[in-house]
Amino acid sequence: MERKLITLLTDFGYKDPFVGIIKGVIFGINPDARVIDLNHGIAPQDIFAGALTLRHSAPFFPAGTIHLAVVDPGVGTERRPLLIESEESFFIGPDNGILSLAVEGKQIKKAIALTNHLYHLKPASSTFHGRDIFSPVAAYLSLGIPAEDFGRQAGDFKRLSWPEVRKREHGIEGEIIYIDGFGNLITNIHRRDLEFFQKEALTISLGDLTVEGISQNYTHGAEKGYMAVINSWGLLEVSLFKGNASLSRGAKVGDTVRVQERGQARPNR
Amino acid sequence: MERKLITLLTDFGYKDPFVGIIKGVIFGINPDARVIDLNHGIAPQDIFAGALTLRHSAPFFPAGTIHLAVVDPGVGTERRPLLIESEESFFIGPDNGILSLAVEGKQIKKAIALTNHLYHLKPASSTFHGRDIFSPVAAYLSLGIPAEDFGRQAGDFKRLSWPEVRKREHGIEGEIIYIDGFGNLITNIHRRDLEFFQKEALTISLGDLTVEGISQNYTHGAEKGYMAVINSWGLLEVSLFKGNASLSRGAKVGDTVRVQERGQARPNR
Amino acid sequence: MERKLITLLTDFGYKDPFVGIIKGVIFGINPDARVIDLNHGIAPQDIFAGALTLRHSAPFFPAGTIHLAVVDPGVGTERRPLLIESEESFFIGPDNGILSLAVEGKQIKKAIALTNHLYHLKPASSTFHGRDIFSPVAAYLSLGIPAEDFGRQAGDFKRLSWPEVRKREHGIEGEIIYIDGFGNLITNIHRRDLEFFQKEALTISLGDLTVEGISQNYTHGAEKGYMAVINSWGLLEVSLFKGNASLSRGAKVGDTVRVQERGQARPNR
Repeated sequence: MERKLITLLTDFGYKDPFVGIIKGVIFGINPDARVIDLNHGIAPQDIFAGALTLRHSAPFFPAGTIHLAVVDPGVGTERRPLLIESEESFFIGPDNGILSLAVEGKQIKKAIALTNHLYHLKPASSTFHGRDIFSPVAAYLSLGIPAEDFGRQAGDFKRLSWPEVRKREHGIEGEIIYIDGFGNLITNIHRRDLEFFQKEALTISLGDLTVEGISQNYTHGAEKGYMAVINSWGLLEVSLFKGNASLSRGAKVGDTVRVQERGQARPNR
Repeated sequence: MERKLITLLTDFGYKDPFVGIIKGVIFGINPDARVIDLNHGIAPQDIFAGALTLRHSAPFFPAGTIHLAVVDPGVGTERRPLLIESEESFFIGPDNGILSLAVEGKQIKKAIALTNHLYHLKPASSTFHGRDIFSPVAAYLSLGIPAEDFGRQAGDFKRLSWPEVRKREHGIEGEIIYIDGFGNLITNIHRRDLEFFQKEALTISLGDLTVEGISQNYTHGAEKGYMAVINSWGLLEVSLFKGNASLSRGAKVGDTVRVQERGQARPNR
Repeated sequence: MERKLITLLTDFGYKDPFVGIIKGVIFGINPDARVIDLNHGIAPQDIFAGALTLRHSAPFFPAGTIHLAVVDPGVGTERRPLLIESEESFFIGPDNGILSLAVEGKQIKKAIALTNHLYHLKPASSTFHGRDIFSPVAAYLSLGIPAEDFGRQAGDFKRLSWPEVRKREHGIEGEIIYIDGFGNLITNIHRRDLEFFQKEALTISLGDLTVEGISQNYTHGAEKGYMAVINSWGLLEVSLFKGNASLSRGAKVGDTVRVQERGQARPNR
């Protein structure tokens, strides 16, 4: 597969030059690289949000894309720098789970611990592996260096688990796993978890808020304010029409969300 | 015209992966596309700010550029997805006015409602047309597919109107239409609206603030604090020297701004 | 040297279209330009932060890169627009010091005041030289126009000075010069300033906070909370383990940081 594109996903934010420095390292090694910002707005050190982002973004990129993901609170410790080659793509980042949701269910061709210092900046710092290890490896990989040259077989790697959806009498129970910038409350409940229910006959409850039925789009809440939709990731989401559901409800990641057949719903306190 | 560049303008912000996903879709279809972030900081669902941004940015890009603009509170409803081909450029987005200020006064070669599902992701969601309709259409368009292949003639489309500047005795009255990140207060009053006045002899008033004359640049306020300039968009703007006029005055979009010949000014309450 | 890449560094933030407009100007002149966002999150009008960013980013980019840096509170005044050609790179921006830390200690091949209007947009505004002067010059430079064509020899230019590290009895005294988005407190104290001390035997103090020794990475503070590291720029930095040292301490740029040999430390009030 051709290795044209390198995407960047970090929790570095937009205030500092750290992302720019990473780009410099990549272009310094491969001036013909094509570097694409995926997102740098991951909350500091929120590995799960990074993993979720990568899972829902990587499938759209062409085969051979190199995805660099750095949310790395353990930088400089014994957590390994990792390169995973799947059937379609390459993933580079710390072995802390950030790469794991994107490769879940995919065939792993290689998992390499990045032990070959030949492809690192020297001297490598112990505080910025994004600059000194991950980005040079991505750049050399884009030049066609085979994955196995970058280090040793890693064996298994850290995998995050998807928060479990629990079965309840006449319904299921999940939780908020991500809140987007519009304030939409995204849950771990997938379209598949709801396939044996009749969507119009469901009540979704979150604290003392209850929403009747699952809407087709964000304007079906025009009269009622709050609504539930199956979002573009296939996940149940609670939204406020032209508003911010998170701010209005004081909702946060981890809050319980219940889905029950009509007539069976009770507020979850 | 060559179709090299695709620009992206959204209200998706910088916290989430939605812009990254759009880029994935584009590169997945055309790995040689060149994608440029125009701006993703439009306030959520602020169609006018998006339209204003596009109007003042698009003219600088080369002929054939494809501008993708997604501020789309009505996603999934009957508002149409739209492609406009002007003499110079292509514009893709929802038919809610966001494209309209950029093509005002331009010759429209084609306006196409994006009804041809062949060029959409499948299944298309009803909550993220940026991913499922607009970005694949932009990518196929960049491959040279003719505009008319993407759907049916749209006829007329939603057009935003420029807020009217009103004539007043010895002056004119306008309003704040945009506040930039420096806190500069940008009005709907164009250089042309002021051409029959002597700029040094004008008093600009905003609430109980009055500014004498129109300065050449942002440092002419060094002594006096507040100043008025004709900004880089040709619009009258009220600024605070090395400060944030918006925060200092509590000014907001829609506030009245008066321009009067000296000796005629009164505070506008 | 080949001139492939143009990097952009500004204080324009991410709310407004100003960076997008600059990209339009560049692509309008050179549709084959490759434009890279270095950072647009510099605090408004913070020339030193911009200069510091450029200093620590530019060295990683390939030879011939054109660095455009616009933090320009004096736009439209007599401060000159400047182009500096060093042995490795080109730097374009206002002559207010923003380019100076990046070229400190480098051989300057040319310093040109951008007086040749042939390469500016017309009419050039007096409020947005990023659009009207700096970006068109960068674009024409990327097409191979020689530096001297853009104007006159500039002679010397404004240089920022690195804040001095002061010697104290049994130690040294510096200050916070930059606070990153993680809240890490970056000082002007370089690794070289500490080379005659034994790092484990040092006490770092900041207000009434004292930290013992210099850690190898950000997790060595796991037990103690606060820690000091030599960061990826070679500078002494005070951090809070998985926290925000700046918010927790109320620390700000300019605050004094003391380094003393063990047994000699006193709180600095």
